[in-house]
Amino acid sequence: MEIDVFTGINGIPDEAINNKTVIVIDVLRATTTITVALAAGCLEVIPVLTPEEAIEMRARLGDERVLLGGERNALKIPGFDLGNSPREYTPEIVAGKRLIITTTNGTRAIRRAAGGHQVFLGAMVNAPSVATAAAWGEEDITIICSGTKDRFSLEDFLAAGFIVDRLTALNGFTLRDGARAARDYYLYRRDDPAAALKESYHGRLLEELGLGEDVDFCSRVGTFDVVPVYGGGIIKKIG
Amino acid sequence: MEIDVFTGINGIPDEAINNKTVIVIDVLRATTTITVALAAGCLEVIPVLTPEEAIEMRARLGDERVLLGGERNALKIPGFDLGNSPREYTPEIVAGKRLIITTTNGTRAIRRAAGGHQVFLGAMVNAPSVATAAAWGEEDITIICSGTKDRFSLEDFLAAGFIVDRLTALNGFTLRDGARAARDYYLYRRDDPAAALKESYHGRLLEELGLGEDVDFCSRVGTFDVVPVYGGGIIKKIG
Repeated sequence: MEIDVFTGINGIPDEAINNKTVIVIDVLRATTTITVALAAGCLEVIPVLTPEEAIEMRARLGDERVLLGGERNALKIPGFDLGNSPREYTPEIVAGKRLIITTTNGTRAIRRAAGGHQVFLGAMVNAPSVATAAAWGEEDITIICSGTKDRFSLEDFLAAGFIVDRLTALNGFTLRDGARAARDYYLYRRDDPAAALKESYHGRLLEELGLGEDVDFCSRVGTFDVVPVYGGGIIKKIG
Repeated sequence: MEIDVFTGINGIPDEAINNKTVIVIDVLRATTTITVALAAGCLEVIPVLTPEEAIEMRARLGDERVLLGGERNALKIPGFDLGNSPREYTPEIVAGKRLIITTTNGTRAIRRAAGGHQVFLGAMVNAPSVATAAAWGEEDITIICSGTKDRFSLEDFLAAGFIVDRLTALNGFTLRDGARAARDYYLYRRDDPAAALKESYHGRLLEELGLGEDVDFCSRVGTFDVVPVYGGGIIKKIG
């Protein structure tokens, strides 16, 4: 069994996804927000690629429990109920609801992973639980960092490194090069993951937009034990 | 001025290449071998994508000084004069010659970089000189790791990290996320780069093929001060 990490969604070979356990990471903020929403009692999350697709799907579902969430340029989309800040997704707002979400990078990565045997969503906030769930599968694991507009994302690589480090402690995996580098990067920065997130491109952007509290929130390791799993176009809690 | 690092050639935005200083890295072994060939007195190197293209170009050039070099699956191509081991490229063999080369990953990456304002070829063996040459340009720098068959290459990321670390000491660059992670990875492994290369996927493959000495050769930092520069389809020594 082997683990590899991809630092973006472009050019991932199909052989790295098909029949593998795939973990999709978008720490700032899609996979964090989806984890928090499910932890808060949201029934399911439907990731879509565009705001138009989200609005059409809400009309098609004709279910008053549906909420629209997501961002473009890190900000709430006009006409949507919620943005992409995990702090908005409280039990008062999302419990018992269905969420349609579209984000710039995360939802594209989730859709790319669709051929995986199992597809989990990982972030810093649920990284320990995701590692445990992935190790149970006893098959090759591919970790996809969503990246930011076709560039490398520090925060996704850090979370990938945490998960690789945890997986190697749980089970006897062979590490391919991307997994080795992510693990070493995590080991170099593990004393202060929040500092790494704050110096990331996306972290600095959120800080400038007055969303610095989101960066702190997203950098905490293991604050939720929810593992979102994607299948048939829908994300639910595992189990 | 900013620096970014891409861990493979797929999906690099054109804006990261056009009008930038681009450094292409394929430590094992294309950019090491090209550096060594030019240091040994080879007049110029022409990178091509396929063995067929190499053979056609030799016929078209009609120059008895032309040598064919390169690899497929790490081994010399039938009918070629040389493989892809830098240790083959001695002054006795390549001085005064023109080299047509095709490799699995490196030559694709060099061709992808063609839109750059300046395109340098970097490896561990010439990393300090490449950093110095790139810093002189006083423009944004994009470092492209060639990768291995669409996957991450540890050795390229390590060399990229060395160059980023050196560049930040030479000049006031802003680091994008890929550059930060590469630098941190290098800082974590800098006491023994040879060990990092030996644990890489490509390093282990070469070891299995009896080419372990190539891995040692390619891991030595700064043993050559040659900076290969690519333009108009041809690679020459800078200056």
